[in-house]
Formats: sequence, C-alpha cells, structure tokens
Amino acid sequence: MDLSTFLGLVFGIGALLVSVVIEGGSVTSLISIPAFVLVFGGTIGATAMGFTVDELKNVVTLLRIAFTNEKYDAARLINSLVLFAEKARREGLLALEEDVSGIQDKFLQKGMQLVIDGTDAELVRSIMETELTFMQERHHRGAGIFEAAGGFAPTMGIIGTVMGLVHVLGNLSDTATLGPAIATAFIATLYGVGSANLFFLPIAGKLKTHNAHQIFFYEVTLEGILSVQAGDNPRIVEEKLKAFLAPKQRPEPKKQEDR
Amino acid sequence: MDLSTFLGLVFGIGALLVSVVIEGGSVTSLISIPAFVLVFGGTIGATAMGFTVDELKNVVTLLRIAFTNEKYDAARLINSLVLFAEKARREGLLALEEDVSGIQDKFLQKGMQLVIDGTDAELVRSIMETELTFMQERHHRGAGIFEAAGGFAPTMGIIGTVMGLVHVLGNLSDTATLGPAIATAFIATLYGVGSANLFFLPIAGKLKTHNAHQIFFYEVTLEGILSVQAGDNPRIVEEKLKAFLAPKQRPEPKKQEDR
Amino acid sequence: MDLSTFLGLVFGIGALLVSVVIEGGSVTSLISIPAFVLVFGGTIGATAMGFTVDELKNVVTLLRIAFTNEKYDAARLINSLVLFAEKARREGLLALEEDVSGIQDKFLQKGMQLVIDGTDAELVRSIMETELTFMQERHHRGAGIFEAAGGFAPTMGIIGTVMGLVHVLGNLSDTATLGPAIATAFIATLYGVGSANLFFLPIAGKLKTHNAHQIFFYEVTLEGILSVQAGDNPRIVEEKLKAFLAPKQRPEPKKQEDR
Amino acid sequence: MDLSTFLGLVFGIGALLVSVVIEGGSVTSLISIPAFVLVFGGTIGATAMGFTVDELKNVVTLLRIAFTNEKYDAARLINSLVLFAEKARREGLLALEEDVSGIQDKFLQKGMQLVIDGTDAELVRSIMETELTFMQERHHRGAGIFEAAGGFAPTMGIIGTVMGLVHVLGNLSDTATLGPAIATAFIATLYGVGSANLFFLPIAGKLKTHNAHQIFFYEVTLEGILSVQAGDNPRIVEEKLKAFLAPKQRPEPKKQEDR
Amino acid sequence: MDLSTFLGLVFGIGALLVSVVIEGGSVTSLISIPAFVLVFGGTIGATAMGFTVDELKNVVTLLRIAFTNEKYDAARLINSLVLFAEKARREGLLALEEDVSGIQDKFLQKGMQLVIDGTDAELVRSIMETELTFMQERHHRGAGIFEAAGGFAPTMGIIGTVMGLVHVLGNLSDTATLGPAIATAFIATLYGVGSANLFFLPIAGKLKTHNAHQIFFYEVTLEGILSVQAGDNPRIVEEKLKAFLAPKQRPEPKKQEDR
Repeated sequence: MDLSTFLGLVFGIGALLVSVVIEGGSVTSLISIPAFVLVFGGTIGATAMGFTVDELKNVVTLLRIAFTNEKYDAARLINSLVLFAEKARREGLLALEEDVSGIQDKFLQKGMQLVIDGTDAELVRSIMETELTFMQERHHRGAGIFEAAGGFAPTMGIIGTVMGLVHVLGNLSDTATLGPAIATAFIATLYGVGSANLFFLPIAGKLKTHNAHQIFFYEVTLEGILSVQAGDNPRIVEEKLKAFLAPKQRPEPKKQEDR
Repeated sequence: MDLSTFLGLVFGIGALLVSVVIEGGSVTSLISIPAFVLVFGGTIGATAMGFTVDELKNVVTLLRIAFTNEKYDAARLINSLVLFAEKARREGLLALEEDVSGIQDKFLQKGMQLVIDGTDAELVRSIMETELTFMQERHHRGAGIFEAAGGFAPTMGIIGTVMGLVHVLGNLSDTATLGPAIATAFIATLYGVGSANLFFLPIAGKLKTHNAHQIFFYEVTLEGILSVQAGDNPRIVEEKLKAFLAPKQRPEPKKQEDR
Repeated sequence: MDLSTFLGLVFGIGALLVSVVIEGGSVTSLISIPAFVLVFGGTIGATAMGFTVDELKNVVTLLRIAFTNEKYDAARLINSLVLFAEKARREGLLALEEDVSGIQDKFLQKGMQLVIDGTDAELVRSIMETELTFMQERHHRGAGIFEAAGGFAPTMGIIGTVMGLVHVLGNLSDTATLGPAIATAFIATLYGVGSANLFFLPIAGKLKTHNAHQIFFYEVTLEGILSVQAGDNPRIVEEKLKAFLAPKQRPEPKKQEDR
Repeated sequence: MDLSTFLGLVFGIGALLVSVVIEGGSVTSLISIPAFVLVFGGTIGATAMGFTVDELKNVVTLLRIAFTNEKYDAARLINSLVLFAEKARREGLLALEEDVSGIQDKFLQKGMQLVIDGTDAELVRSIMETELTFMQERHHRGAGIFEAAGGFAPTMGIIGTVMGLVHVLGNLSDTATLGPAIATAFIATLYGVGSANLFFLPIAGKLKTHNAHQIFFYEVTLEGILSVQAGDNPRIVEEKLKAFLAPKQRPEPKKQEDR
Repeated sequence: MDLSTFLGLVFGIGALLVSVVIEGGSVTSLISIPAFVLVFGGTIGATAMGFTVDELKNVVTLLRIAFTNEKYDAARLINSLVLFAEKARREGLLALEEDVSGIQDKFLQKGMQLVIDGTDAELVRSIMETELTFMQERHHRGAGIFEAAGGFAPTMGIIGTVMGLVHVLGNLSDTATLGPAIATAFIATLYGVGSANLFFLPIAGKLKTHNAHQIFFYEVTLEGILSVQAGDNPRIVEEKLKAFLAPKQRPEPKKQEDR
C-alpha cells in the first residue's frame, strides 16, 4: 500500500466533506445524476478516443501501481553489486552464475546474465538502455491516460454547467426554483474540477514519481553491471554508484572499512 | 475500425445527450444556427490560415487514420527478422532476395532491399532514419491541424457568447426574452468547448498515439535490419529487439528453444 | 497569393458577421471607438516594447510572406541534384560551373558555388548549416512578433472590459443605459479575443509553417549538395533525398528507369 | 536567514492586510474555517498523492533551505583552486593531502580526494557529474512539491467557492444573508490563490534559485578540480574559472599580478 | 534610448488613457490606494521571495538595459575580423597585439588576447563558450525577475478584486454604494493585468531580445576569433561569418572585390 496515495486521497476528499458539514450544508445536496453522467461519461469518452484499446486495458494495472508502494533499496543494490565485483575479480565472471539465478529483480538478472554469457560490453549497454528507454516511454504513456482525463474533466464540468445554465435561463418563468437550478448546474463544475485535482492529476503525478524512482534504480543497476563486467576495483564500483545517491541514502561507511 | 476512437466519441456525446434528457431538458434547445455558423466557421477559418492548402487536403485522410485500427505486431516482426538473420548467416544476404519481394510493409521492404543491394551500413541507417524523422514530422503536422482547431474552437465559443451578450444587453427593453437570449448566447461556448474536447483534441491525441506506435514499430524494424546486415547471431538479434518491448509483449520463449 | 491565409481570414470574419446578421443583430453595434483605441493601441504598444525597431520594421514584409504562396518543389529539386551528380561524375565538379550560374535559388547556388570553388566538405556543411540555423532563428523571431500580439490582445480586451465595467458601475444612477453600457464594455473583449484568434495567432502559425517548409527544402538541398560533392552514385543521391519526402511526393519511378 | 524570502513574505502578506485596513474592511472578515479546511486539506491531500512518503518527509528541510541564505563565494573558491594548482605543480598532487582534509565543502573535498588517490581523470569527471546530475534531480523534485501545491491550491479555492455558491443558491429563501454568504464563498478562492502566489510558488522559485546557485558553484568546482588534476598552469586555471563569473564577481586582478 | 521600449510604453499607456477619455470617464476614477498597495506590494513581495538579494539588486540595471539601445554592428565586426585574418596571415598573430589593445568590446578583446598569448584553440573555445553560456544564464535570470512579476501581478489583481467583493458583499445593507464599491474592487484586476501586460512582460521580452542579439553577436565574434587563430584564408573567414547574417545585413560585396 502506497501510504501517501491512499492517505492523500482520503485526506483530500475528507477535507472537502468536513468543510461542507462545518458550513452547515448537506453532502447529499452535492449529488447530481445528470452532472455525474456528463462529467464522467464525457471524460471517459474523450480520454478513450486518444489512446488505443490495448493502452486503455492497462488502467486497472496503473491504478494498482499508483496505490502500491514498491521499495527500491539502492543502498542494498549497491552492496550486492560491490559483492559481485569482488567475486568477479577473485573468481571470474562465470563464478557469478549461481548468484545470478537467485536474483529477484528481472532487470538486474537479465543484465548480469548477458555479462556472464560473455556479451560485448557495448551490446550489454545498448540492450539494457533500449529496455530502460522504452520502459520509461510505456510508463509515461500510462501516466498520460490520467493526465488526459485530468485535462478533460474540468472542461466537461464547464460544459455541464453551461448546459445547466442554458436549461435554467431558457425557463425563467419559474423564478422560485431559479437558485437551486443554478446550484445544480454548478455541481458539474465541482465534479470536473474536483475529480481532476483530487484524483486524475495526483494519480498521474504518482505514476510519474514511481517511474522516476524505478528508472533511477535501474540506471544505478546498469552502471553497476557494466562496472562489474569491466572488472573495476570494488571500491571504484562503490564510489561510482554512491555518486547517484543523496548523502544520507548512501551505504554506511563502516561496511566499507570491513572490506 | 479503431474501437476506442469510435466508442469514445459515441460514449462522450451520448453522455452529454443522456445528461440533458435526465435533467429534463430538450436536446433541440441546444441547437443554435448563429452559434454553429460562428464557432465552426471561425474555427475552420482560423485553423486554415495557419496551414497550407496541401496540408489541409490531408484532413480527410487524417480522420480516416484516427478511426482505423492499424495493428503493429512487433512480436511477429521480431520473429521474421530473426529468421532473416538465420538465413543470412547460413546462405548469405543475397538469399533473402525472394523473401524481401514478399514483404508487405514498405519500410521493412525498402530497408532490406538496400541491404541486399550491398548498400553501406552507415548509408542504410542514414537513409532509413531520415525517412523516420520526416515521417514523424509529417504526422505531427497533421495532428497539429486538429490541435489548432481544438485551440481555436473554445475561443470562438467565447466570441460567440460575448457577441450574444452584447446583443442581449444592447436591447434590454424586452426583459421577458432576457433569459432565453442569454441561454442562446451560452450555446456558442457549449459548441466551442464541446467540439474541442469531444472531437478536435481527442482526434489529435489519437493521431499522435498512432504515430508513436508506428514510429516505434519502425525503430524496431530498423534496428533489426541493421542487425541482419551486420551478420549478428540470431539470438543476439532477438535479444536486441526484445529489449524494445514490454515483457508481456515479447515473443514466447518456447520459440527460442525450438531453434 | 497564399489561398489558405486569404480564404481562412475571409471565411473566419465572414462567419462572425453572418452569425451576427442571422441572430438579428446589427454589425454597427459591434463598433466601439474607445475599445478599438485601447485594444489595438495597447497591443501595438506592448508588442513593440519587446522587440527592437529593426525587427518591427519587418512586420509588413512578414505579412506579405504570410499571404504569399511560395512553392517548394522538392521532386524537381531532387531531379536537378541527381542531374548534377551525374554530370559531376562524368565530367568533374568544374563542369557544373555554367549550370550553377543559372540556378535561381540563392541557397542552392551559394552551396554549389562553394563546392565548385573546391571548399572543404566540412566547411561547406558548417557554412550552410550556420546559414540555415540563423535563417530559422530570424523567421522564428518574426513569427514571435505576431505571437506576442496574439498573447497581449486578449488581455488588452479584458483591461478594456474591466475599465468599461468600472465606468458603468461607478455611475449606476442611470439604470436605463446600464445594459447598453455593459454591452459596450464587452466589445473590448470581442476585439481582443477576435483579433488574436482570427488574425495574430493564425498569421504566426502560417509564418512558422512557411518557415518549416523552407527549412525542410533547404535541408534536402544541403544533403544533395554534399552528396554531389562527395561524388556519390546518382542512384544513391536520389535514394538519400527521396527519404526526406512523403511517398506520394517522390519523383516518378519512370524517370529512374530512363537513366 | 535568506532576507528576500523572509522580507518578501512579510511584505506580500503585509500589503494584503494593509490594503484591507485602508479599504475600511476588517481582517477577521477574511477568516473562514470551512474554506481553510477545504483549501489546505485538499491541497495537502492532492499534493501528497503525487509524491512518496520519503519525499514528503523533506518538506520541513526544504522550507528551512528556502529561508536560509547559503553564500557561495565563487571568487574565493577560484582563489583556493588556483593555490591548489600552484602547489600541485610545485610539489605534486600528493602535497595537497593536508589541504584537502581541511576543506569544508563536501563536494570539493570528495573531488580533490579522488584526484589525490590517483583516480583516472575520466572517472573523476564521471563520478562528480553523476553526483551533480542527481543532486539537481533531487532538488527539482523537492521544489516540485511546492510547485504541485501551488498548482492545486487555486483549484481547491475554486472548488470551495463553487461549493459555497451551490450551498447559497440552494437556500435562496433567506435573501438577507445572501450577500455575506456569497462573500464567504469567495474566501476559499482568496485562500487558494493567495497561498499559491504568496507562499507555495515563490518558495518553489526560491528552492530552484538556490539549486541553480549551488549547481553553478559546483560546476566551477568540478572544472577547477579537473584542471588541477590535469596540471594546468595556474594562470590558465584562473582564466578558465573566471569565465564562469559575471565580470564584477571576478577576483580582483591585483591578486593576479601578485603571482 | 531604446525607442521601441520607450515609445511602446508611452503608446500603450496613452491608448489606455485616451480610451478612458473618449468613453467619457475620468482618469482619477481609476485610482485606488488599497488596490495599488495590494497589487504592487503583493507582486513585489512574491517576486522577491523567489530570488536572492543579489539578483534583486540588479533590477535597476536591468531596467536601464531594457531602455537602452545597444547597437551590435555585425557587418563592421566581420570587416574587423577579416582584417585581423589578413594581417595574421601576412605578419603573424603577434602583429595583432597593438590592434587588440584598441578593441572596445571586452569579449572580442579577451578572445583575441588569448589567441595572441598562444592559448590552445580548444581552450580558447572552451573559455569563451563558458563565458557565453553563463552570460546567457545570468541574462535569463534577470529577465526572469520581470517574468515572475508579470505572472504574479494579475493574480494579485484577482486577490484584490475578490477581497473587494468579499468586503462589498458582507455589507450589502447600503445598496446605494454597491455599484461604486464593486467598481473599486475591479480596479485591482486592472492594475494587475495592466502592469503585467504593459510593463513587466514586455520588459522581460525586451531583455530577452537584447540578450539574443548580444549572444548572437558574440557567437559571430567567437567563430571569427577561432578562424583567425586557425589561420583561415580571409575570404573563408568572411564566408563563414556572413553565413550568420540575413542577406541584407551582409557587408557590401564591393569591399570583397577591393581585396
């Protein structure tokens, strides 16, 4: 569970509801079926048009990713890579075969397997960078679905409000219901702006954040794999990889002295 | 038929109409000839000014592309390229002559023909990349027409509404028709914002999506062609090309073992 | 005459006027001298501040360019360059001297002259690319003047409307003229948004379109010049240059067989 | 204390309050609990959703940075590096060992230590540039939190105002309280737009400014370290590094003549 | 005096005032002390927060630059550089010593001095390009202050208007002063939008324009310096440098024939 996604959503919507209650309003007065149909129907329709069916099928997976907290422990990764570098220097790259079969991360495993198979260093870099580039491209397109929805929702809200006003103004005879009718018209704006800013755009932001962390983790991984393959001194491997991290994230210096 | 373009459009407009009906309004009250003339005439005029006649002639073709679902089967492409690589290593590049004449995709065929003709590898890359670069440029200019229309339509709607208000406010004597007259003025905003967000911008988005998929497919194609020309080991060719794909799109590993 | 600039402008403004007439309004009611002075005076002033006098002097030339249709016939250019390549291979680069003196396009002529003068290939590329880069820079700054005006005009319209409302609201005693006075205030918004979207921004768009076509044409030209200088096989020259074009723009294959 | 952050904040909020008092309004009339709950609760929720818990934990540190004035004295840095260059040429790189242990700036110290340890120049550049790149990335993500809040706050304000209007318009019976109720509704817009423009966005701007100054300082540092390692003439080191500075920031020429 | 900055400002503000007078309004009715305090106090505060005290101290200098017309005569620069190239080829680089001491432009002088001192060509390019890069960076940050102010001013205007409306709506009892009070509230919007579009943003635009011209001039200068150092044929130097210019800005061809 990604706490900030979940709590942020609860907190945001909660703030909205609490505010209504404090003000003495009733939450049910914010419910409008026509506004709901228009804003979410229109947003889904407009968003779907811009993507392919295959891309749209990922929406559930993408939501799951936004609400899941995948930890990328770079300090632990660096320690593993340094150990690989030491073993490779002592016993040769082939000695890493059994370690590699136990690696959980697919990206690290594939890269190390290529190295053990004796693939040319340039080719390893090219294959793994291609993988990273297109992984990022796919993730950005995924976040793009929610960004598109976050762009369309407020305009659907405006369409709903304008349509409501047109309806109201075209039937001014009954002035008693004028106020409530205009109030209802504004609910579409509320749905559009609210869903965009409390759901679609923050989810797109979280997807990009998760992507940034993952790509960053894999950049460290790739640099480490290539350093192991090049037979770099383990201390150099560590120095190179620690440069990616914020000072406070770096592996403890004690571990360095142990070696 | 590109299902998401078609269904998205139907769903979006349907949501709008259903919402009107639920609210007890009549769809005919949303019809205004002056608003229609102004918003669509103005949008067509402003959009046309920014492009050349030749570019504008492509609009129908572009719409057809947005509503057509061209499948790019990268897994199958990779299998073909791996087979080419095997044959080329066994029997030489010239042996691919007859395979090439049967290729349907123009881009792949042209690239393989250049390879078989013994064109220098650098030149093959340069020619095919030039082709890709300017294909992308042309596609972006095409999507740009719909983006421009999607930018102008809402402002034309605002112009229509302001013009309507000016008309109404200049003749306040007849207060009975004030409401309906203002309602009519707002219909221009509805047309502008609606057409931009339920048609122009999503179509531009779909054109860019189709372009992204096609360019991606051709990037895999080009990498494969160059790998075949270089006489790469078929396993390396497959490894290189699979790196472009998402894990679940990759060709089944069984096929690998068959070889 | 660039038809799409001219017809687009006529069509856009025509749609606006037709819409007024259909609605039963009078076109003269859209005329307001104070709004005109404020919106266009303010837009001209704000735009002028951001550019130099020398740049502003080009405005008339830029307008002429936006309304003029310069044809760039890439297929014919490619045929010429292929002929140059053939002649250069048969009779040497110096044999092109007389052909060059007859070339109308300054860019092609200058490039070919440098080649005939025996200028180093790297230097030819560097000089011609510098020329292209700064040509593009100058064109973009030119389009930037109209973009700036298109950005300032709507805000001047808002200023005019707000000033009008301030004037109206400060003198509420005479309620009879309230409506018409507010109507007049909105005319400034109309002028600002209308001029931006039916003139300034589309003109900027057309200038960028013309620039894109010209730069594209010269990129093909430069590639061709360098290919001729390198003594490439005419078939290769043609293949290289055709890669820039959309399939349907390419020179007819018959001509190829003639050779 | 970063004077411009502190005084700017005081000045901005002061201007707002002074303006209220001059106009004869009371500051307490601008207080609304529901608006406060909605705008800040919603902004915090929406912002939190887009980032990870670890990133959000930095918010206090980031605020401290925005209000702290860290001086980067480039002229003094250049003088130190020139002295290092002189000493390195006279006595060798190892002679710098004791100077390095006294350096306060971690970045300069780490770089010089790598140089003294005899690390390859390419590797020093690569490690230190990696450190700079990802330092900048982290700082930008930090500023991004405040930018996101600055983007969400005004829309939360609009949501609050619309919700307030819906509440008011749904209960038009009591026309006496209509005005004050609408006034209260607008306070949410005030909170949203005000907090974004007098706090969130300026803080994000200051964080980026501080980052720009720090990265700039470290670019000079890195260039100097590499120049010392390369054994450049001290005069060249100075010339190279002074090129980064504005003329008036450069170390006094007198010092040059002393050498 | 930069005529377009000065006349543009006068023209823009003049148009605004003339428009008020034509409409029969009084200019004094546009004066509001609370709006002035809020909009300009708030804008200054918010802008100041994002920059450092040192950067803010440059504001007066930046204004002076925006109103000063510095001429960059590229044709004359090219003629000087061609003369340097001729002299250098005839008499050696050292013969330029006395010419250099008479050069007024600091950038050209520094570059030529480095050349005469026998500095390595790569180092000359690196030092001078560093100087250009960071000069541009500093200028952009300077223009950024006015851009930030131009972004904050309209939102401060909105804050002022909303605060005014809150004040008005909270005291609806006195309906007689309702109109004028709302009018006063709108004056804040007028100040915010007006100052942004008739002062802050155009000044930022002019600063960027001046920067673009200066950087362009120095790019020609640097290319020329390096060409002189390389001992290029004066005709080549001229050809290289003229490629930067628009055809009509190029030095007269007669001068070429004189040589």
